[in-house]
Amino acid sequence: MVKSNRNLTLHTDLYEINMIETYWRQRIANRKAVFELYFRKLPFKNGYAVFAGLARVIAYLEQLKFTNDDLDYLKKIGYRADFLNYLAQYQFSATVRSVPEGEIVFANEPLIQVEGNIVDAQLVETAFLNFVNYQTLIATKAARIKTVAGDDQLLEFGSRRAQETDAAIWGARAAYISGFDATSNVKAGEKFGIPVSGTHAHSLVQAFGSDYAAFKAYVATHRNSVFLVDTYDTLQSGVPAAIKVAKEFKNQTNFLGVRIDSGDMAALSKQVRHQLDQAGFWYAKIYASNDLDERTILNLKMQDAKIDVWGVGTKLITSFDQPALGGVYKMVAMEDAHGHMRGTLKLSNNAGKISTPGKKQIWRITRKDDDKFMGDYIATTAEDPRTAGQIELFDPEHPYMNKIIRDFEARPLLREVFHHGKLADAPLSVEKIRRYAATELHRLWPEYKRQLNPQEYPVHLSRELYQQKIALIKRIRKAL
Amino acid sequence: MVKSNRNLTLHTDLYEINMIETYWRQRIANRKAVFELYFRKLPFKNGYAVFAGLARVIAYLEQLKFTNDDLDYLKKIGYRADFLNYLAQYQFSATVRSVPEGEIVFANEPLIQVEGNIVDAQLVETAFLNFVNYQTLIATKAARIKTVAGDDQLLEFGSRRAQETDAAIWGARAAYISGFDATSNVKAGEKFGIPVSGTHAHSLVQAFGSDYAAFKAYVATHRNSVFLVDTYDTLQSGVPAAIKVAKEFKNQTNFLGVRIDSGDMAALSKQVRHQLDQAGFWYAKIYASNDLDERTILNLKMQDAKIDVWGVGTKLITSFDQPALGGVYKMVAMEDAHGHMRGTLKLSNNAGKISTPGKKQIWRITRKDDDKFMGDYIATTAEDPRTAGQIELFDPEHPYMNKIIRDFEARPLLREVFHHGKLADAPLSVEKIRRYAATELHRLWPEYKRQLNPQEYPVHLSRELYQQKIALIKRIRKAL
Repeated sequence: MVKSNRNLTLHTDLYEINMIETYWRQRIANRKAVFELYFRKLPFKNGYAVFAGLARVIAYLEQLKFTNDDLDYLKKIGYRADFLNYLAQYQFSATVRSVPEGEIVFANEPLIQVEGNIVDAQLVETAFLNFVNYQTLIATKAARIKTVAGDDQLLEFGSRRAQETDAAIWGARAAYISGFDATSNVKAGEKFGIPVSGTHAHSLVQAFGSDYAAFKAYVATHRNSVFLVDTYDTLQSGVPAAIKVAKEFKNQTNFLGVRIDSGDMAALSKQVRHQLDQAGFWYAKIYASNDLDERTILNLKMQDAKIDVWGVGTKLITSFDQPALGGVYKMVAMEDAHGHMRGTLKLSNNAGKISTPGKKQIWRITRKDDDKFMGDYIATTAEDPRTAGQIELFDPEHPYMNKIIRDFEARPLLREVFHHGKLADAPLSVEKIRRYAATELHRLWPEYKRQLNPQEYPVHLSRELYQQKIALIKRIRKAL
Repeated sequence: MVKSNRNLTLHTDLYEINMIETYWRQRIANRKAVFELYFRKLPFKNGYAVFAGLARVIAYLEQLKFTNDDLDYLKKIGYRADFLNYLAQYQFSATVRSVPEGEIVFANEPLIQVEGNIVDAQLVETAFLNFVNYQTLIATKAARIKTVAGDDQLLEFGSRRAQETDAAIWGARAAYISGFDATSNVKAGEKFGIPVSGTHAHSLVQAFGSDYAAFKAYVATHRNSVFLVDTYDTLQSGVPAAIKVAKEFKNQTNFLGVRIDSGDMAALSKQVRHQLDQAGFWYAKIYASNDLDERTILNLKMQDAKIDVWGVGTKLITSFDQPALGGVYKMVAMEDAHGHMRGTLKLSNNAGKISTPGKKQIWRITRKDDDKFMGDYIATTAEDPRTAGQIELFDPEHPYMNKIIRDFEARPLLREVFHHGKLADAPLSVEKIRRYAATELHRLWPEYKRQLNPQEYPVHLSRELYQQKIALIKRIRKAL
């Protein structure tokens, strides 16, 4: 479990506090509400996303409490004593359900569901979105890169370009979940127990004045060596020096290979491979780093570049081609004055932006014979497709398109992580999450996984849920 | 001064630790070195950048120390006891010079300079780059938006889409430095003392069942009100309800305006303005938020949209159109075995990527009569253009283009922030930094400030510095 002593209660938008004050002063702070977190569009025109951020959500909830410093600040900006006393006693008591970290997920599926009093549900909005939007984005980007890299080793090298500290650290973890093998960030290694990697930079060569002197100094002080060979001239100086040192210190060093960080990677890697092979170092690997992403890696592979290990930085850690996932967090149900839960929604001129009311469950439908994903079925919590024996897969965008399926397995994706404010189960280790992500991705058909123009994975609403939505839209429109 | 008790010593790439081990075991850990941080290309094809991140650098250095937990972790991943003992006693003792936070800066200028032993200089690389790359990027993006918004109020609303927590918090500060008026992030308000802003979300309207009930509940519990009017229907329900509540509670509420978060902002804002004016609320402001950036704001203004206050989120806080600044940190000088400082550089096939050796100073040259920036002059620290009485502005890309100027003021931009490991001066308050940024930007000619195709601001090397660089390149090439 990820430990943190960092209290992030004020890592929230001011309007959450203002709404909480209204709920409390209007005496509805104890009314039950259900909020759900989801995104409306997959990033990168990808066919799926990899859900990440849950460990951070849990660490945050374990520390959620207004400290005296927080209350002093809120007083300073104008909140009154009675409300501050209420906040001082505030304790999170909601039930939180989430899909497992590492799960393959799609647009318009509730990834996290908060059921509790309206204050609990409102307070956590900003932080939940901030954590899940970023980490899911990076895990998804990393999965795209992993698909292209195949069994090649992948190293996350982005810390210096990451959008501040937390992005470097939590981004490294998200990348690891999706199949990266190690990170350069030592703090991420310490915090999550994930492998760390790295030997030396150009500055070592500059400090010792030559490739040869620097590599010699490095092997004298480290068991494993990967030499960065492009400080002055890769083919003329860097690789020859690496070979010389690897030969001279054969018994002393575990010569893993060389790293190239500039130049024409396709041509250069072949020449470097040739030099290494000629010297008998056929086992030495070639590491490459320099603004790599799934596109450049694919292109280098197409050109038969002799690269064994990919160091990926900026393009992954900032999700360069789409730096934000547009996750939202919407109220889907609220207790009325008579104690009844009522579905709620936000209207919009854009049909796709109208939220779906009611507390839901996602059922992942798989084929009995090969365990592959057939589609997801989003239903009210009153429904259980396993007892029904059949499911009507029904497309809400095209209600006339429907299909009955009978021979399936169904499992619910939303599971309790907090029960009335208490952690329900010990969170999974990052190793288990990583294996889970790999297994789940394996169960997704290739047509949803390809980089370009993937098929759209079927996500269906139950007819019950759809009818509730239509009825509520009509009711609200009528009342306007 | 920004306080922090967060120790980020391990927020570094593993190779820094490995190089430090080599320096220490090879007994060169006490040799002096100079490293400089700079970027090679302005972001967004902008004509300038706004330097930010120094407060974070200072807070980081004040906590820089290997804790017992850090050392335990480093032991676990294989470092030996003697080296760990060395790290346990490690104390940062370098001198750090920096341009002031909020300064207008350009490509290939040393923004931070670290002069100390090589261990000090190496250890801080990753963190310095991580802080400065992100915060400078956001401050620059925010300055672009400010240029378009003019005197309109600008609110930073991006926390939910920011790349994790630190980006939300430090990004809010960077935006404030460049002229944003407030942030929605309460933690940023608490930490930096910057103004916070926000009233309510759609969920308040959903919780109370109607615009009218929700707005009424809000004014009953808050003095200032900005009503979000697009939950169900902006013109039919939202604005009429806002007007009704503002009239009914005239003496009780300070009705500031309404916020629109969806729909055609240009058309809608005019209709909303008309409704408000008809009701006598000519003073009520219209707030807009919905994926805004400098382009959409400019276009909305061109269409004469009636928007008074701009809430900017995703596009600013993630620097959506370019989510990374490519800052680098290079060794420029190193003490040799005889105690002499020697210039160092990294060669490259790409001439623009070859670093410039030697410890430098940036001189900002201004005209005596109007205080406007004429250009920057980068020189060795042995030179002082003020005593020379004239400067040869000399373009290293085109050495035949040169110009002598005589009637100028010159001031050095790099100033000591740490002196031999101790904070040199109390850092400026964020208010002072914000005013400084505004004043400095005012001194930049408009041709460098325009959004599209700005002129290239002159950044010149002194002939001395240029000649040292050429000589060193020749010397290294000869030795290969």
